[in-house]
Amino acid sequence: MSVPAAPLAGQFEGGCAFADGAYVPLTEARISLFDWGFTRSDATYDVATTWQGAFFRLDDHLDRFFASLSKLRLSIPYDRGELRQILHGCVRAGGLKDAYVAMICTRGVPPKGARDPRMAQNRFYAYALPYVWIASPEKQAQGIDLHVSSRQRISPASVDPTVKNYHWIDLVQSLFDAYDRGHDTSCVVDAEGCVTEGPGFNVFAVKDGVVHTSDHGVLEGISRRTAIELCARLDIPLRVAPLPVDLLRGADEVFITSSGGGVLPIAKIDGKPVPKFPGPVTQRLQDAYWAIHEEPQYRDPVQYT
Amino acid sequence: MSVPAAPLAGQFEGGCAFADGAYVPLTEARISLFDWGFTRSDATYDVATTWQGAFFRLDDHLDRFFASLSKLRLSIPYDRGELRQILHGCVRAGGLKDAYVAMICTRGVPPKGARDPRMAQNRFYAYALPYVWIASPEKQAQGIDLHVSSRQRISPASVDPTVKNYHWIDLVQSLFDAYDRGHDTSCVVDAEGCVTEGPGFNVFAVKDGVVHTSDHGVLEGISRRTAIELCARLDIPLRVAPLPVDLLRGADEVFITSSGGGVLPIAKIDGKPVPKFPGPVTQRLQDAYWAIHEEPQYRDPVQYT
Repeated sequence: MSVPAAPLAGQFEGGCAFADGAYVPLTEARISLFDWGFTRSDATYDVATTWQGAFFRLDDHLDRFFASLSKLRLSIPYDRGELRQILHGCVRAGGLKDAYVAMICTRGVPPKGARDPRMAQNRFYAYALPYVWIASPEKQAQGIDLHVSSRQRISPASVDPTVKNYHWIDLVQSLFDAYDRGHDTSCVVDAEGCVTEGPGFNVFAVKDGVVHTSDHGVLEGISRRTAIELCARLDIPLRVAPLPVDLLRGADEVFITSSGGGVLPIAKIDGKPVPKFPGPVTQRLQDAYWAIHEEPQYRDPVQYT
Repeated sequence: MSVPAAPLAGQFEGGCAFADGAYVPLTEARISLFDWGFTRSDATYDVATTWQGAFFRLDDHLDRFFASLSKLRLSIPYDRGELRQILHGCVRAGGLKDAYVAMICTRGVPPKGARDPRMAQNRFYAYALPYVWIASPEKQAQGIDLHVSSRQRISPASVDPTVKNYHWIDLVQSLFDAYDRGHDTSCVVDAEGCVTEGPGFNVFAVKDGVVHTSDHGVLEGISRRTAIELCARLDIPLRVAPLPVDLLRGADEVFITSSGGGVLPIAKIDGKPVPKFPGPVTQRLQDAYWAIHEEPQYRDPVQYT
């Protein structure tokens, strides 16, 4: 399907969506109440970011998005180049330098009375908003207090976690658990009681100089991958394996990774201070995370004029 | 919040929605792409039906819906009487005698950049459509072939299945498994390999005169409850307990229950004919299911004029 001409730079200042084949203001970004993407959460998505006017690792996000589509047997009417054009178009129209850029595919609206997912025409949506921090800069400075919920993340035996999906009731309920107890955010566990992930982020523990993160039951976050690759670059020992709660509670440093802020140090676990905040390993990874945003192989600059 | 005046009978002939506090045609039933009800599937819903001009067991659906809201810490701006008014209004405006009537509450659209579910204003939607059969009358006559998928239903340790929810990727993927193998629909299992439920229905097996259905990991369907209550009325022995796949495969009769058709006999399991189709116990329950639609205590007639 052809992509409409690039919108004017700043045409939808502050944010722009792409819905039903056209660039539109955010207020018009709506989906049918009957779309199975809503009524069955039968959808996948990805979120890339731009930082200082350039996408970061856009190709990795596109790779993951197309892989997710394939795993759920969804398709979009745009090829990779066209998708890239649309995402650039949203950022350009929004006039955004630092942006949160989502691409979404839903199963679509079924024909009347149909129950068969093959009968729906899949729908594609995208939008660019100002960059979203998973924790505000004030909260980051003050120190994030992470609650380890006893709720279990939806098992890979039910929903493939490598497909970025909207099945989040478990994560949202764990957030309520955290707030009830006076903490700032939360992570959930697997059936064996190992830490998996939180609402929109992966979890890392540093113990005796070794960085640990879960190998299963989690989204393979691009920021997680960046942190993993940076460990190799910086010669920081890394272990990707089941992450017991006790290892997290006994860690020297704890951090989370997200496209909504990169590498973010955690100050407390369930109210108990993490010994090193921000820890030296976390700090090195955080600095390196922002530094590689400058490297040409990861940058895809937006044309604003 | 006050409910708008009842719409005219047949004002939106064929179907009517209620969105943002007003009755609207179905084409205007849309939600924001940013509503957490979509982007986190943080929502609950219920589906009642009308049959020959009257709601069936509406109070049971309202009870379950309000219980689900409370479990997810959602709220709607209408009390029970107002909600009842809105649902009646949708059916009346749609001019529908046999209707599928949904009520939905979503977490809502977050303030800019917010991650905290407490900060969103919850949204309420409803709609009435023509009655939806989970299998067409032709397919029912021909005989439904049920695939037992090895996929696991999302565990109660992650998402409370008694809260009617849109976390359905597991069920949708099991449907693809079924279609790939030439079957008509599917059910999924739990971690112990016992049968749980299918996409929109509960599963029952009849063996040596005893009716079996799962006691856990399933939606507590109102049609399931009706079947259970009818077993008591009709002196049919019933066992509500984990339902091993082998019991299902070795059953004399198999049926499913859904608001989309009541009690529906299954002809084959994974292509293998069920010995009795439709079986005598299934037939008695099916007849009784429709017969009690006439009983005043279950009927809530719609005023069409």
